[in-house]
Amino acid sequence: MLVRCAFIETYKTPFYCNNFSSHSTMSIYQATTSAPVNIACIKYWGKRNESLILPTNSSLSVTLSQDNLRSTTTARADPSFTADCLWLNGKVDPIKPGGRLHTCISEMKRLRAAFEAANPDQPKIASFNVHICSFNNFPTAAGLASSASGFAALVYALAKLYALPQTPEELSLIARRGSGSACRSLFGGFVAWDMGSDDVTGLDSKARQVAPESHWPEMEALICVVNDAKKGTSSTSGMQRTVVTSALLQHRIGYVVPSRMADIESAIADKRFGDFAEITMRDSNQFHAVALDTYPPIFYMNDVSRAIIAIITEYNRLSDQPKAAYTYDAGPNAVIYALTPNVREIAQLILYYFPQAEKIVIGGQEVEAALPEGFNEAVAKRWEVGSVKGLIHTRVGDGPRVLSDSEALLNAQGIPKVLA
Amino acid sequence: MLVRCAFIETYKTPFYCNNFSSHSTMSIYQATTSAPVNIACIKYWGKRNESLILPTNSSLSVTLSQDNLRSTTTARADPSFTADCLWLNGKVDPIKPGGRLHTCISEMKRLRAAFEAANPDQPKIASFNVHICSFNNFPTAAGLASSASGFAALVYALAKLYALPQTPEELSLIARRGSGSACRSLFGGFVAWDMGSDDVTGLDSKARQVAPESHWPEMEALICVVNDAKKGTSSTSGMQRTVVTSALLQHRIGYVVPSRMADIESAIADKRFGDFAEITMRDSNQFHAVALDTYPPIFYMNDVSRAIIAIITEYNRLSDQPKAAYTYDAGPNAVIYALTPNVREIAQLILYYFPQAEKIVIGGQEVEAALPEGFNEAVAKRWEVGSVKGLIHTRVGDGPRVLSDSEALLNAQGIPKVLA
Repeated sequence: MLVRCAFIETYKTPFYCNNFSSHSTMSIYQATTSAPVNIACIKYWGKRNESLILPTNSSLSVTLSQDNLRSTTTARADPSFTADCLWLNGKVDPIKPGGRLHTCISEMKRLRAAFEAANPDQPKIASFNVHICSFNNFPTAAGLASSASGFAALVYALAKLYALPQTPEELSLIARRGSGSACRSLFGGFVAWDMGSDDVTGLDSKARQVAPESHWPEMEALICVVNDAKKGTSSTSGMQRTVVTSALLQHRIGYVVPSRMADIESAIADKRFGDFAEITMRDSNQFHAVALDTYPPIFYMNDVSRAIIAIITEYNRLSDQPKAAYTYDAGPNAVIYALTPNVREIAQLILYYFPQAEKIVIGGQEVEAALPEGFNEAVAKRWEVGSVKGLIHTRVGDGPRVLSDSEALLNAQGIPKVLA
Repeated sequence: MLVRCAFIETYKTPFYCNNFSSHSTMSIYQATTSAPVNIACIKYWGKRNESLILPTNSSLSVTLSQDNLRSTTTARADPSFTADCLWLNGKVDPIKPGGRLHTCISEMKRLRAAFEAANPDQPKIASFNVHICSFNNFPTAAGLASSASGFAALVYALAKLYALPQTPEELSLIARRGSGSACRSLFGGFVAWDMGSDDVTGLDSKARQVAPESHWPEMEALICVVNDAKKGTSSTSGMQRTVVTSALLQHRIGYVVPSRMADIESAIADKRFGDFAEITMRDSNQFHAVALDTYPPIFYMNDVSRAIIAIITEYNRLSDQPKAAYTYDAGPNAVIYALTPNVREIAQLILYYFPQAEKIVIGGQEVEAALPEGFNEAVAKRWEVGSVKGLIHTRVGDGPRVLSDSEALLNAQGIPKVLA
């Protein structure tokens, strides 16, 4: 989305990197995009190459709807900008040389330069500095990983700013350099990140859409935002400690994940929810198992997380096939996947054990705490209000979106409209 | 310890299995023993043969002093007893045909019968029914496994009652049939349970003393008794679910445990505490990792257990070599191994985060809550009184003891002196 405009006033700001000189007449090159959160069913945990961010195993995720959770990014290139600059949630986020932000921005500029070389009629903007402003619509306090949606939105915004011909798959290579799992947020639906085997270029380590969101639109998710006093180990340092110290990780990588990837892709293709759920739960368990097998051990789940697992396990015991699948990333929050007909019942169950301060509404109707027939209440205690501090109901969703200029996060002068 | 006595009165009791007829003059065949608790450093988790209780891997434990924790058992054989009968902590514990108690008692009777056949001068008591009374001096509520010390005391009491020539190693074969880890309680000090390879007889799956308690008497233990609302999965059913469903267990069994067994035996031989501690903590972590890799997953540690791990990890960070080793069995209690000079400091640290209702005394001196120099306080929150509901200080100890008749748990009539 290229927007042209006739005039920018000189503008002085207190921020270190957005002093720019005045111009009389110029074009504005700017694009605004949003990108989704994805939650893995087969977990990414461990890099075989830290600088290229090449994983030790393939992974697979569900893209969640941007109607609920998204990162929005505006990127602008302008000859008056004296430095590349990025604001995240209204605060300057330094672009350190050689850092991940720097890598992504440089790679995108490189693609633009190649594009300009191949298309001499294109404006020469590859050398301009860029201002990038990004917002997550979910609070960091929610403990939801924002780096995946954030880097996907960043790469996509730059791709649109630069009018690049690259496919989402090709862009996923660059998002991966920002944050491994970000590559999967370049697609909607069900997305694999194939680990690849080229350790020199990493060009075969990219995302691939296994099925679009329209394939299985009944796939919904209930996110239980769990209160946690303690800040866990960062996933970047945690996963490398696992690679170095866990005796079990190599077995997971070599023998477990390959067949799980094939099995879950097939379960998705055939919409076999029971199999999808079992693989998802087993892989979440195994990811946390290798984290625990790390030395010193890494814990992300707490007693509330454990209680939710006990509740979902009991819920699934009541039917032939699992009707709910929990999964936990590098934190205590549960994401529960379920099909549309079962979501209300599962929300009732969660509410029974984890009362909420605010009303929970699903499908326009308030959810009341309740246990299904035959449910063994004793699998968990009833917790106090605030133990699960929020429930987010969402569903499988689409890939990155291009937004209109009215949704841009930068003002006419190229600085954030909203600052923290 | 054979005790002879001239007369027993007819005695009627309300218990179903100790009706016996009157006699005029007879001998009393009775022995009383105690046996210790052992806490594994290399964990036993998984059977390759459920009826013989043959493990999927070798294991190694430290025997804890009976001065603090013990099971005491009196066994008596008498022709007047109309059935084998066992009381555990003052309550009848049924001896089910084919059950573990039945197996142990039958095997011991078989050994006595062979002994009598080889020694015709011995009294013929193998065919008499037995009364067995057993007490643990620690409350079941403490969540400390009592089956190991209990079956060791039972087997040892019967061995003494029957005046058998079998070595502790040979007796460990029978204790193993009662509860796998009981075989290790037949020795003091540092004890291996070699898994063996004979799947038909199981005769090479037995305990072996790696080093006596006198080898490393500075080895002490601090048991943190952790409050837990939820009753965990029983270890018998839990470990079999792990064998069937964990993709990681086979790797642990085949590739991890064998080298760990060799390494920890060598660390014990050389009294290298740092290596002993690291292997112990890694193996505790891995046991809980394979429990978590089970489907549905099994959790034994809770948030208090996790906090103790974080505290010990930070404590160990302050020195070149670990000075404390945590280990967790199938429950939330921590056992912390440490050498004598460091035990007080560790107890102070635990008290800092887990205040106690009662005074803790070590070496005759009260322990005050305190943090070591340089300790990062933020690794855990300070919990409320009762989160750790007790601290037990003990040390490496000896194997089963023969007790005097004055400590017998059965009265002159062969029924428990104390009933629940």
